[in-house]
This record gives sequence, structure tokens and C-alpha cells, in this order.
Amino acid sequence: MPEIRRGLDLHKFLATRTEAVNRALDQSLPPAKTKPATIHKAMRYSLFAGGKRMRPALCLAAAQACGGAEKDALPLACAVECIHTYSLIHDDLPAMDDDDFRRGKPTNHKVFGEGIAILAGDALLTQAFELAAQCRKFPRYPHQTIILEIARAAGSLQLIAGQVADLEAEGKQIPGPELKFIHERKTSALLCCATRLGGMSANCPPGQLAALTRFGHHVGLAFQVIDDILDVTQTSEQLGKTAGKDVAEQKATYPAIVGLEESRKIAAQLTDQAFAALKIFKGRAVALEALAEFLLKRDR
Amino acid sequence: MPEIRRGLDLHKFLATRTEAVNRALDQSLPPAKTKPATIHKAMRYSLFAGGKRMRPALCLAAAQACGGAEKDALPLACAVECIHTYSLIHDDLPAMDDDDFRRGKPTNHKVFGEGIAILAGDALLTQAFELAAQCRKFPRYPHQTIILEIARAAGSLQLIAGQVADLEAEGKQIPGPELKFIHERKTSALLCCATRLGGMSANCPPGQLAALTRFGHHVGLAFQVIDDILDVTQTSEQLGKTAGKDVAEQKATYPAIVGLEESRKIAAQLTDQAFAALKIFKGRAVALEALAEFLLKRDR
Repeated sequence: MPEIRRGLDLHKFLATRTEAVNRALDQSLPPAKTKPATIHKAMRYSLFAGGKRMRPALCLAAAQACGGAEKDALPLACAVECIHTYSLIHDDLPAMDDDDFRRGKPTNHKVFGEGIAILAGDALLTQAFELAAQCRKFPRYPHQTIILEIARAAGSLQLIAGQVADLEAEGKQIPGPELKFIHERKTSALLCCATRLGGMSANCPPGQLAALTRFGHHVGLAFQVIDDILDVTQTSEQLGKTAGKDVAEQKATYPAIVGLEESRKIAAQLTDQAFAALKIFKGRAVALEALAEFLLKRDR
Repeated sequence: MPEIRRGLDLHKFLATRTEAVNRALDQSLPPAKTKPATIHKAMRYSLFAGGKRMRPALCLAAAQACGGAEKDALPLACAVECIHTYSLIHDDLPAMDDDDFRRGKPTNHKVFGEGIAILAGDALLTQAFELAAQCRKFPRYPHQTIILEIARAAGSLQLIAGQVADLEAEGKQIPGPELKFIHERKTSALLCCATRLGGMSANCPPGQLAALTRFGHHVGLAFQVIDDILDVTQTSEQLGKTAGKDVAEQKATYPAIVGLEESRKIAAQLTDQAFAALKIFKGRAVALEALAEFLLKRDR
């Protein structure tokens, strides 16, 4: 469990922010009964399936580090979570990773069928832009900049590129740099985007935005390396999703290429690099530091 | 074929606008070779599969009617076409309408597989927002307004709602108003959005925007009624897609509910209502009028 770091109780930080994000998401989505009810039930099923809300937490923590008001970052935190959830729904489909469980529950298509699951993902992706467009106006970062930031992180050169490269690498021996290409896009791009959006919502100066970019990039890479490690070392019950799938499907992972011990070292190095990027905040980035430490030590 | 209407050669109008839209789309998408090449090839395959570009044409014609420069409307015309193409790719999937042919060519998933087809649709939807965010700033309609316009038309209360209701109506006897609910969302919402965006790009006053809304709404409904009529009366070769599918799959359509003759009357009435909405433009909406007439008389 998270520790108290420089006076920050991360457990409390995560609980309060998760609650705020859940409330904001609940208010921004059409109620489950809205016609056609199936799609709104399906969107809400995955959005409220117990996600850890790490991307929103990074977004809000970044806003805090830059001296912003977290409520200004909230629509952007929610937008990123909608994109994350859409990508999980589509990734779990039979035509992709073919997963039956996610966060301990049946995946969206197992409950609603493939057609509705595809449409629920589409609707959450679209909802993300509706949410982002409704954020406050930030003098340095107009809506145009915010929308471009999200569209590029989620687009065919980043998030989707990662998923495609990941699909294509299945069953193949790929070199380390190629694996890094996948991780940078599949995971790091959206985490980095979440962190940057938090800074933008605080109208941060360019130096702070660059620091948040380095931080998000390295935390994102560490996050995926750890995800791959946990897939090997934990049980399905511990993870809430099918463990050992990477090996079974011959997925390209760090443990598969460089082994477990070396993977752990890489994750720790990446986390150190993430910490180093936060120096510019002179101690005001306690929540970001605590989140990075939490992500490194997590067991699911 | 389209006629010359009040000095407007619609054939030439459509040819030049299609060329401009194709060029702009080509320039805005990553080249087909960009890594991972599969996704960019798949996006371009459907985007350049010979679509009639009716939504971009409506967008550009609306800009013209409002006295705007068409080049200002072009990114928005392209954004709407990306959304239209994404919706076709996803609708054609086996989990949805399960179509093997579209515009005389194999559908996206038949060429690239289901996984890539889903991701290509996702990428085009995301690309639409990237394109829209890059439009000029219009004094009355800031980027926030433009993005909200597109997100709402494409979201779970409009375009996606139509597709869900359409899926759920298969094999059922549904009443006329329910069919109108489907058509308004499945088809009319995005056509109306395209037309409104054209007006917005010309910084049109609210009265003109309201007229474009009425026009787009009625043309959209007429368009779908005619689509349903053609599915019954034309061959697969004429349509470039599988004809008679609506009947085979017991789809809810106007011909199925009120018969062919009554459907033709409804389409003509809707077109008349669309024309009536254009009065405010006092003859400057020739391209919109010609497009509406063309859509009514089309045979594919």
C-alpha cells in the first residue's frame, strides 16, 4: 500500500481523487436509462468497473504541482480516462487480445456482445473530446491546443500505433528498441498526455511542461515494464485479469527479452529518471512523486 | 446525372470539391508507409475507396451560401468525412452489419482483418478531431464550439445511438416514429453537422445557422429514405454494395413499413422542406439546392 511521503497520504489522495473523477464522469455521461439504454449501460459498465484512475490521478497531481486548481483539470482527467477505457474495451475484443476478464469482471463484449462493445468504445472516445472541449479556457493553452494534445496521443502515431505494433509483434522475436517503440506508444503516450494536460490546466510555463513531459514519458515506460513483470509473477486472482497471457500468446515483453531481474532494474531506472524530472518543482510535486513510487511498488 | 441549376454545373462542383477534399485528406493523414504501415494503409484504403464526398460537398456548399471562403471550411469537411468513413468501417464488421463489399470493393476487415479494421475506424475518428482542431478561428464559433458540434453529432445520443437502435430493430416490427428516431441519428445528424459546420466556417449569423440546421435535418432524412428505396429497387452492381440486404435481414425501413410509393412521396416532401429552409439565402444557396435535388434523384 502507498506510504505517507513528505506529509502526503497517497491512499487518501487517490481515494478523494477517484471519488471526484467518478462523480464528474457520472455527471458528464448520459444516464444509463437514456435511449438507446444499451449503449449507455455498456459505456458505464466499463467506465465504472473499478479502474485505478491512475491517469486522472497523474493529471490532477500535475495540476497541483504547477499550482493550479484541480477542478480546472478535472474535465481533462475524465477525458483521458474515457480514452483509456475505450482502448481497453477494444483491446479486449476477440479480434484483438481476446480477453474474457478485466478488473475481475467479464469484459464488455462478454456482457453486451461484440457489436455493442465496439460502439461503446467508439462512444467513449467521442465523449472524451466532448469533455475536453468543455474545459475552462487556459490563456497559454487554448482549446485548440488541448484537443490536439489528446487527438495526437490517442491517434495512429501514438496509442493506436502501439496497439497495432503490439498485435504485429505477437509470436515474433523483436529487438529491445522495437519493444520500447511499442511501450512508448501503447502506454507512455496517454500517461504523458494526462500529466501534460494537468500542467496545461494550471497554465504552466514551458519549462514545467517540458519537465512534466519527461516525467510522464518515463513513468509510462516504467508502468508498462511493471505490467509485464506482474503478468509473469502474479496470479489471475491478484491481477483481476488473466495472468500469464503474455507468455501464452508469445507477446513481446521485457521479461521475455531481458529476463525478470533485468526488467526490474529497468523499471527502477525509469522511475529514477521520472523523479529527476520533477526537480524543477522544488518539492511541490509530492503527489506526482508518491504516484511514481506507488506505480513502481504495486503488485497488481 | 446532375443538371445545371441557375448557372451551377453540379457535376463540375462535385468534381472540383471532391478533388480538393481528397488532396486535403491526403495531406493531413500520415503517409501510407508511416510506421506502423498497416494502420495507415487501412485508414487510407477506406478513406480513398471512392466515396461520393456528399458530406464534404454539403459543408463546402453551406460555406458558399453564407458567403464564406471554402478553404476555411475544408478541414471541417475533411473531419466529417473521416467520421463518416470510420462509421462505415465499424458498421461493416461481422459483429454489426457484416458486409463484404462497400463501394464495389471488399470492406476494410475483409482486406486487413477485423482487429486492424476496428483500429482503423478508431484512428479515423480520432483524426477527425485533430483535423477540426486545426481549422481557423471563427469569431462566432471558437474551436470549443466546433469540437462540441462534431462530438455531439458523432456521439452516443446521435450517430452511435442511430447505429445501436438500428441493430436492435433488426427482425422487429417498429412503428414509423421509431424509424424516424433511427434515421435522424444514423444519417441526418452527421449530414446536418456537415452543413452547420460549413455555415460556422463562414462565421454565419444565427438565423442562417438555424436555416442550415433545418435544411441538413430534412436532407438527411430524405437521404436515408432514398437509401432504403434503392436497396429494394437497385442491383448490387448498381449500388456497389450488397443490395436487398435490408429485406434479407429484416431491417426496419420506410419501404418495409409504408411501401415503395409512399416512401417516394415522403422523400420528395422532405426534400421540399429542405428547399423551403434555404429561402433565407435569397438565391445564394444554389449549390445546396442542386445537391439536395441530386440526392433525391440519385440511383445509387
